[in-house]
Amino acid sequence: MIDYNDFFADRVKPMKGSAIREMFKRMADPEIISLAGGNPASELFPGDELSKIAGKILMTSPTLALQYGTTDGYPKMKDCARARAEKVNSYRDGDAIIIMTGANQGIDLTAKCILNKGDKIIVESPSFIGSLNAFRTYECQLVGVDMDNDGMRMDKLEEALKANPDAKLLYTIPTFQNPTGTTMPLERRKRLLELCKEYNVLIIEDNPYGDLRFSGEDVPTIKSLDTEGRVIYCGSFSKILSPGMRLGYIVGPAALLEKIEILKQVNDVHTPMLTQLMCVEFMKKYNIDDYIEKNRALYGKKCKAMLDTMEECFPKGKLEWTVPEGGIFLWCTIPGFEGDMNDIVNKCLEKKVAIVPGSNFAIDQSLPSNQFRLNYSSVPIEKIVEGVKRLGEVLTEVL
Amino acid sequence: MIDYNDFFADRVKPMKGSAIREMFKRMADPEIISLAGGNPASELFPGDELSKIAGKILMTSPTLALQYGTTDGYPKMKDCARARAEKVNSYRDGDAIIIMTGANQGIDLTAKCILNKGDKIIVESPSFIGSLNAFRTYECQLVGVDMDNDGMRMDKLEEALKANPDAKLLYTIPTFQNPTGTTMPLERRKRLLELCKEYNVLIIEDNPYGDLRFSGEDVPTIKSLDTEGRVIYCGSFSKILSPGMRLGYIVGPAALLEKIEILKQVNDVHTPMLTQLMCVEFMKKYNIDDYIEKNRALYGKKCKAMLDTMEECFPKGKLEWTVPEGGIFLWCTIPGFEGDMNDIVNKCLEKKVAIVPGSNFAIDQSLPSNQFRLNYSSVPIEKIVEGVKRLGEVLTEVL
Repeated sequence: MIDYNDFFADRVKPMKGSAIREMFKRMADPEIISLAGGNPASELFPGDELSKIAGKILMTSPTLALQYGTTDGYPKMKDCARARAEKVNSYRDGDAIIIMTGANQGIDLTAKCILNKGDKIIVESPSFIGSLNAFRTYECQLVGVDMDNDGMRMDKLEEALKANPDAKLLYTIPTFQNPTGTTMPLERRKRLLELCKEYNVLIIEDNPYGDLRFSGEDVPTIKSLDTEGRVIYCGSFSKILSPGMRLGYIVGPAALLEKIEILKQVNDVHTPMLTQLMCVEFMKKYNIDDYIEKNRALYGKKCKAMLDTMEECFPKGKLEWTVPEGGIFLWCTIPGFEGDMNDIVNKCLEKKVAIVPGSNFAIDQSLPSNQFRLNYSSVPIEKIVEGVKRLGEVLTEVL
Repeated sequence: MIDYNDFFADRVKPMKGSAIREMFKRMADPEIISLAGGNPASELFPGDELSKIAGKILMTSPTLALQYGTTDGYPKMKDCARARAEKVNSYRDGDAIIIMTGANQGIDLTAKCILNKGDKIIVESPSFIGSLNAFRTYECQLVGVDMDNDGMRMDKLEEALKANPDAKLLYTIPTFQNPTGTTMPLERRKRLLELCKEYNVLIIEDNPYGDLRFSGEDVPTIKSLDTEGRVIYCGSFSKILSPGMRLGYIVGPAALLEKIEILKQVNDVHTPMLTQLMCVEFMKKYNIDDYIEKNRALYGKKCKAMLDTMEECFPKGKLEWTVPEGGIFLWCTIPGFEGDMNDIVNKCLEKKVAIVPGSNFAIDQSLPSNQFRLNYSSVPIEKIVEGVKRLGEVLTEVL
């Protein structure tokens, strides 16, 4: 018998499948109302439009769609990504673009390009588990910075940088953050850039949700404020077109992206051609911003339905939560709660509603959490209402 | 000014874009006849069939095609991959399958799962640059084993293992190897397994070309001979359906693939859904083996045209080459040549024909090479003939 533990690299030894994925397996039960995932609303997917587009591309340009492509992406797809980045002033002279098989690949490979074993990366605490786990595979040290309702706290960031002046990289989701739903105001973004300049830290700005604002005013991206080439901007078509197509991109200094392109070449050679061509055609034939507008309106309604039901059904005065102005998540805290959040999660599953305990997003996942994440984009409004009611019953029972 | 060299991880510092890719850029000139790439023949791509299939999937199952999928792959796509593996007896009880965004991703992530910095991996010398470069990003030590016309030499492998008894992994393309076109006979495969058992080494068997035999008899895969769970088998749909769709898979012990799945989750989350669904439908509606048969016949003809023209136009007695029984490459050696292979390559480019110098596939790329790789799958027969004639002119002039 071969003991595979003898073979595993150190980087994967501590890694376990994410608890979210485990929960997804239990959620195969179609009766479960999932407030756990991060799926965009499928009811608006432009299936008919993309059906015609895909059929035509394969009929008229089979070689282009089916033959190998270039690692950095199909040139017109790069133009589309550039157009999205330019819309938020996040493309500057000297920048390059690489099309990624989902933005997560851009984050993974940027980390691979920068982080040696033991290097320090500053992250929001809590943050997106997919990115945190990607970073963990490079055996780096995650330095978490506390957040409030305006995202990462700059006093805490300064403390973290003082304590870790050798940090190389900072990872942030400044807009409609996952998991908290919070957005960093302009002043914080400016301060973040200043501090990163002072300590010579590069920045990954992950912005998959930025287009999904349904209230309040747009805030400039960190990339748009960067005059030095300090920011690698990660954009995604997952939340504005389709996650299953796996289309994302990174924009940043050419000298940096040149190396990241090599890492992509040895990873998946290039992003599939057909999905790139479909995105190009979709953006040529339709106004993607009209489509995004429909999503925004829907998410605004869904978020309101969730918040209204929470007000109504959560035990009074026992919980706090963020009120997002966009995106797909909100974040609940039970102040003073010292029980086991997994009990609440399991009681919810008994009532056929799924939520994600906060420990999943923690820098140290072994610590207890008094928080949980809710998603309002995936399921229809009536299910959001029903799911939050059941969650309210559990919370009333436990708290 | 930010000096990005201050930030690069050690693993990417020595990496440069592959010379092949640089050559591809020069090859943008449509008049150049490329014997350099590794593209399958596009003239047989089933564009019409896939057009209908894609159109229908997106019309009837938009949510399935456009929403997030699972990391290990769409279940029916896993069945398709399993069917391909079973056809060559390369799936056994206790195995798992992960659908990859191209087989290269499977190789990259398997290496990431196993190789610590400084670990040793045994490889054929020469070998596929994409895999070698993937391994290099894990800062491992590549141990090359010499080959002859029957692939990796077992006496040399034994020497290598004696000298490196701590090697963890062996990477081989036993059938129609890239770049040499050679195939390891059954006895060598058995011996390779024995030696890997003796020294407790895991094996990555990369088999993207195995279906493309146009002469001789099939040889069992190494995976089919493995009774211990020592082999991770990498299969691909790139050479039998479409490379641009980026569909590959790995088959191997579940305990190992569990960790690799986590690495895939943090890399691209999952392979795009539409291309997976298209492959499933294609294999349901059509007999993919009929389609492969057409490719085999075409490649047999193309290979013969290349070999015949080489016999005719290469300077007599000055070169040796492999005679492949399948796949898409052959390998030329100029015994005793001490000149610069790049001169030959550049003289070829002046005559508008592209070949790849052997140093690209070397373990130590800085050493001079008296070898080059030719591809016969990509271009039409008349261009193969014309390209080899021009190459013959250059060789006659130089040698």
